[in-house]
This record gives sequence, C-alpha cells and structure tokens, in this order.
Amino acid sequence: MADVQSPWPRVTLVLGGARSGKSSYAERLVDGTLLGDAPRPAMLIATADPADSARHGDAEMAERIAAHRARRGAHWATIEEPIDLATTLRHVAADARPILVDCLTLWLSNLLLRDRDVDAAIDALAVALSEIQVDVALVANEVGLGIVPDNALARRFRDDAGRLNMRLARQAARVVLMVAGVPVPVKGALPA
Amino acid sequence: MADVQSPWPRVTLVLGGARSGKSSYAERLVDGTLLGDAPRPAMLIATADPADSARHGDAEMAERIAAHRARRGAHWATIEEPIDLATTLRHVAADARPILVDCLTLWLSNLLLRDRDVDAAIDALAVALSEIQVDVALVANEVGLGIVPDNALARRFRDDAGRLNMRLARQAARVVLMVAGVPVPVKGALPA
Amino acid sequence: MADVQSPWPRVTLVLGGARSGKSSYAERLVDGTLLGDAPRPAMLIATADPADSARHGDAEMAERIAAHRARRGAHWATIEEPIDLATTLRHVAADARPILVDCLTLWLSNLLLRDRDVDAAIDALAVALSEIQVDVALVANEVGLGIVPDNALARRFRDDAGRLNMRLARQAARVVLMVAGVPVPVKGALPA
Repeated sequence: MADVQSPWPRVTLVLGGARSGKSSYAERLVDGTLLGDAPRPAMLIATADPADSARHGDAEMAERIAAHRARRGAHWATIEEPIDLATTLRHVAADARPILVDCLTLWLSNLLLRDRDVDAAIDALAVALSEIQVDVALVANEVGLGIVPDNALARRFRDDAGRLNMRLARQAARVVLMVAGVPVPVKGALPA
Repeated sequence: MADVQSPWPRVTLVLGGARSGKSSYAERLVDGTLLGDAPRPAMLIATADPADSARHGDAEMAERIAAHRARRGAHWATIEEPIDLATTLRHVAADARPILVDCLTLWLSNLLLRDRDVDAAIDALAVALSEIQVDVALVANEVGLGIVPDNALARRFRDDAGRLNMRLARQAARVVLMVAGVPVPVKGALPA
Repeated sequence: MADVQSPWPRVTLVLGGARSGKSSYAERLVDGTLLGDAPRPAMLIATADPADSARHGDAEMAERIAAHRARRGAHWATIEEPIDLATTLRHVAADARPILVDCLTLWLSNLLLRDRDVDAAIDALAVALSEIQVDVALVANEVGLGIVPDNALARRFRDDAGRLNMRLARQAARVVLMVAGVPVPVKGALPA
C-alpha cells in the first residue's frame, strides 16, 4: 500500500469538539452553500443508525440525528453505514456527487464496540480515500484535550481517535478545526 | 427578534480551557492595560457569588474568586449576578464603563442548576448585547474537547455550553482562543 | 529571581492533546530531521521511568515508552528523570546536544503523586531554562478543554498543568499546538 501516503487533493477533514459546528460547516462545504452557491445534490454517509439508536433506547442520539436531517435540504441523499465505510465510499463515489461522512469518531466507536480490527479498517478507508474522484468532507471529533479518562476503554478510544485523526490529517488536502462555530485553518487554506 | 443576527461590533468573546489565561487577558483588554494604556475604570459582572460558594462549602471556588479580585486593581467595580445577566448588562452599560462578564459558562451552569429556560436566557442576553454601546468582553470555557462524559447531565451541560459559545461567536466582532496564556485569533484580528 | 521573566530564545513548547503527534514533532524538531537535515545527536530527558511503570503494572505506559524509543534512532541518548528536571537539564546541557523533555505533564504528575512543592519545582525549571545554551523542546499536554472533572485531585492536576503551560509559554520563544499531527503556531513562527 505504497500509495497510502499520497495526498488526497479532494478531501477536507473537519475537526472539532462537541457542538462546535462541525456538521453544519461540513454540510455547507459539501453542498456548495458555504460559498453562496445554489445547493448542489450531495450525499451523506451517516455512521449512526437512527433505527439502531432507537432500538437500544438511545433517544438522545436519535433526536440529534433527526435534528441534523431536518436541517439539511431535499438535495441531500443519505446512506447509513456504521461499519464498512470503505466499501460504501467507493460505491457512493460512482454517483459523482460530493460526499459528507459524518462522523468518523462514531464509526471508530462502532468498530471498537463490535471488536473489529481498527487498523485494518482505517487502512481500507485510506485506500478508498486515495482513489476517490469526488469532493469529500470527513467530520471527526477531537476528544483528546481533556483530563486522562479513568477507565481503560475510554483511554483506548481516545488514543485510537487521535491516531485516526492524525492519519487522515496527514493526507487530507485541508484540515479545519471548528472553534465555537468558526472554522480555523489547520492545514491548507479555508475554502473561498 | 430579527436583529438578533446582527453583528455586535463592540463585543469580544474570550474562549479557553481551564487555567488558560482567559480572565487575565479579558481584564487587560477591558481596562486598556493590554495595549499599554493607563488603567481605565471598568466594570466586572461576576457570575459567581462568593457568599453563595462559601455557604455551600465550595472553598475552591471562593479561593479562586478572591485571587481574581486581588489581581484586579481599584479601578474595577464588581457586580455579582449569577442569573439575570441581560438585565444587569443593560443596567451597567448605562454607566459607560467597559464591561467584563466572567464567566458565561458558570452562568449557564447556574441556569441549569436552577432549572431555568436556557434558550430564553441566551436569547435575552443576545438582545442585550446587540443593543449595548460600550466595549464588552465575554469570558467562556471551552469544555467540549475531551471524551464524552458518562453522565447525561454533564453531556447536556457540554452541549449547551457549545451552543452558547457558537451563538455568541456568530455575532461577536472578535473571538479569541487562549492557549497556554497566549491569545490565538479565531475571528477578527487581535487588538493592537 | 528577576531574570525569570526574561525570554528563552532557544526554547520551543510543544502542546497538544493525547495522540496529537507532540512527541514525534518535537523529536524531529530537536534532531533536525523536521527540516530535512541529517539527524544530529540529540538528548531525550524522559520523565517516565519504564522500570517504574513495569514494577507498578502499568503495561500501557511501558508499551507506549517502548514504541517511542523504537521510533527514535541511534543518534538519540536518553536520560530518565521523573523528578529533578532542573538539575538534569543543567547537567545535560553541558554536553551541547539539543534536548527534548518529554513530557512535562507527566513530570507534574510525578511531583503531585510524591507530594513535592510544585511551585518551587516550576521555579527551578524556569531558572534552568533561562540559563540554557542549547536548543530545547518541551512537550506538554493540554488537558483543560474537557468538562470539569468530578474529583478534586483531577481538578488540582488540571489547574496545575494549565498554570505550568502558561508559565512556560510566557517565556518560550516558540509555542506550537499540535492538532491531529499538524503543528499550529501559537507564538512565534513555525521552524522553516
């Protein structure tokens, strides 16, 4: 996988904390409205499954997903894929629409909960991203700037999330950190 | 409230983590000493109530408040207002002194603990800020960059704090993120 | 200690969250490979003691230390000093090699666990740094951007870590914040 280190010219990584405006910014970036364009058809790969959340009684998550969906317009199509992101990305990219993946941190959490091979999954995602020919925005949480968590699982998750973000930031053309809803350029220039 | 989206040309939002230098920076911004001016009379609206903290045995908070007070000079007047920030802001602004509000995250916590309507309180604050004719610095904590908290109340607080910060950042003329005591411009230029 | 406020022209502070690429960046800064130079002999002062970690069953920490060590090349020498950083810095600086201290947050934790005088230790470190004649990179964790910890000891640690970072940032010539492996300049320019 020598090509895995090559840059991904069409990929933007949108990082931020909880309620920092990541999803909203990435949506507007992908559908073109951020720059004042008319909304263009766009594809969301959602890593949360509202049915699944509801089944497990996670009303909080289901509510958040519904609010996100209501905010997006009819020009958005949505695919839910909690696990096999690489295959879904490849499949969806054939459609030529720009893609939003929201969010990678939840995807990582899904992998860990189901005891999947995280490194292999990240490698597969990296290969898919290096081959993709459409604009992609990846949303991910920054979770490593608080106190060290007490429990080992949370520390493992925090470490894996950090490694995932570093891996993606290394090849993404653009990295943006959201601070209170304001995009701060970390790598590359802000879109303009 | 159509005007609520209008910019607040005299408002600076100072964000940062614990012990990142937010209060010190905002104090020097408001009283003019940041730019080397002679200290000008200034007004602090403190959202913590030392008497209240003492009564509830929160020695840690009382100590922190005392240290902050000692650091500020005699050119500062202080009003303690843990809840009704909008009314206090309006009242104090009539005095023409620049104002420091320290801090909004504690104010939010006060609202939640007393089961007040957070959205209504934030709306009222936004209206007051849009009408104000003096320089105002708002201090707020960034609390969303750690691991997701275990308990639902902490998650609610974290979400509300993020939404509050986004709301204020959208209209403030200037947003600064303190990193280890160093101001990093997020929106607008640093004062110079 | 009037000189303690003077700048430290050869000191870089590298801040960041967990798994944000702090150590890797600081290593490459110190041994010259960051700018494409051939690796120069360099000295690591490691504040963790792998033997100590192993003895206490902290396999996680021992593993992390081993991975860091494997990543560095043979041009690195290592001294382990969990407590008396000021003396070790002075001793090592006589050798004329550039120095990496990794990391200060763990050092602070060591001081707190052994009930040492944190303020005195930080003062002594500051004096040593103000006298040093070689390039030094200091790695430290940013731990204050999450929710307020439940337990008082964690709050104390978080506060002390914030104060330590502010103290060092005030005098360091350069402060860098790592975000997903990307260096963001906070004070001074990035090396180029």
